[in-house]
Amino acid sequence: MAEYIESLQKLAEQFGRLDGVGRKNAMKMAFSVLDMTDEEASEFAAAILDAKAKIHLCPICQNITDKEICPICADLQRDRKTVCVVSDPKVVISMEKVREYKGLYHVLHGVISPTNGVTPEKLKIRELLARLNEGEIEEVIVATNPTVEGEVTAMYLARLLKPIGIKVTRLAYGVPMGSDLEYADEITLFRALEGRRDF
Amino acid sequence: MAEYIESLQKLAEQFGRLDGVGRKNAMKMAFSVLDMTDEEASEFAAAILDAKAKIHLCPICQNITDKEICPICADLQRDRKTVCVVSDPKVVISMEKVREYKGLYHVLHGVISPTNGVTPEKLKIRELLARLNEGEIEEVIVATNPTVEGEVTAMYLARLLKPIGIKVTRLAYGVPMGSDLEYADEITLFRALEGRRDF
Repeated sequence: MAEYIESLQKLAEQFGRLDGVGRKNAMKMAFSVLDMTDEEASEFAAAILDAKAKIHLCPICQNITDKEICPICADLQRDRKTVCVVSDPKVVISMEKVREYKGLYHVLHGVISPTNGVTPEKLKIRELLARLNEGEIEEVIVATNPTVEGEVTAMYLARLLKPIGIKVTRLAYGVPMGSDLEYADEITLFRALEGRRDF
Repeated sequence: MAEYIESLQKLAEQFGRLDGVGRKNAMKMAFSVLDMTDEEASEFAAAILDAKAKIHLCPICQNITDKEICPICADLQRDRKTVCVVSDPKVVISMEKVREYKGLYHVLHGVISPTNGVTPEKLKIRELLARLNEGEIEEVIVATNPTVEGEVTAMYLARLLKPIGIKVTRLAYGVPMGSDLEYADEITLFRALEGRRDF
């Protein structure tokens, strides 16, 4: 019985460890590997090792990169006076898709979460302070998630950075474009009202 | 920008080739690999190569196995007079979960599909005939999917096997257990009526 094939089970378990992959899908993926040619499977295995070996954190912004310094930090056309602080490299991808933001980034690799044992020391805040100490950066846009933990992290950064003369801003909160107000949650509506602007 | 990290893109492409994995999920999985330790990533890559290297087709039933002969074919407690013909190794897993079927299997590895270039010669029908020639098998239960292609394959097998004196049966069609008749499709209802039985 296929369920007893140890190497298939083990492969399915490996897929099951990935973010958002359930048990059934993991087995489906393991079967997909069996349908590959030996060459394709080797390429797949090599891609895993290759990504792990080549990708590291940019020593400046802490975003992931396979270059010595990431292309954003290395791009001299960008506004070097503004740094957008995000929790995760994935947020950088989302921000870059907007094509509006021309400043730099700083990736914290998490948010402050005492219940999960994530204290400020475990985030890349020390590295952010070192960058700010160089004196070129004038504004820090805190773009953490609008969640309790994201807010706590934003507040922490604001309190830390304002005294050293850095302008600290955050993303606007409000109703998302294209949404139906009927279904907007109260907190979002409250934030949208609070942040209302003149026409 | 993370989108430009070649080795991450390549890894996401590899995940995207797997059955049922979309572009967004593939990138999520690639990020999961980056979150692994080097050791975990090595284990993952090894599991892919290991599964490909160890798993092959059972020379008797053509199901996938990592043994010389699969555990079902090797199990002398099973009814060796009955063979259930399925399209795919995954169907064997589903059938075994029922725990009612005690016979053997034969995996065709596909169904007849002229539009996809799958002719009977491309399926493991020759291997089935060779097993039947040995004279031990009395009944072949055709358990292909209740789809046009599955039906065509079942009909083909019935016409091929009946003349050589093999009893050929197929699974019952009808309304699935726990379903709501209000939402049953017409063909299923027609089949259920057609196959009605006395109390």
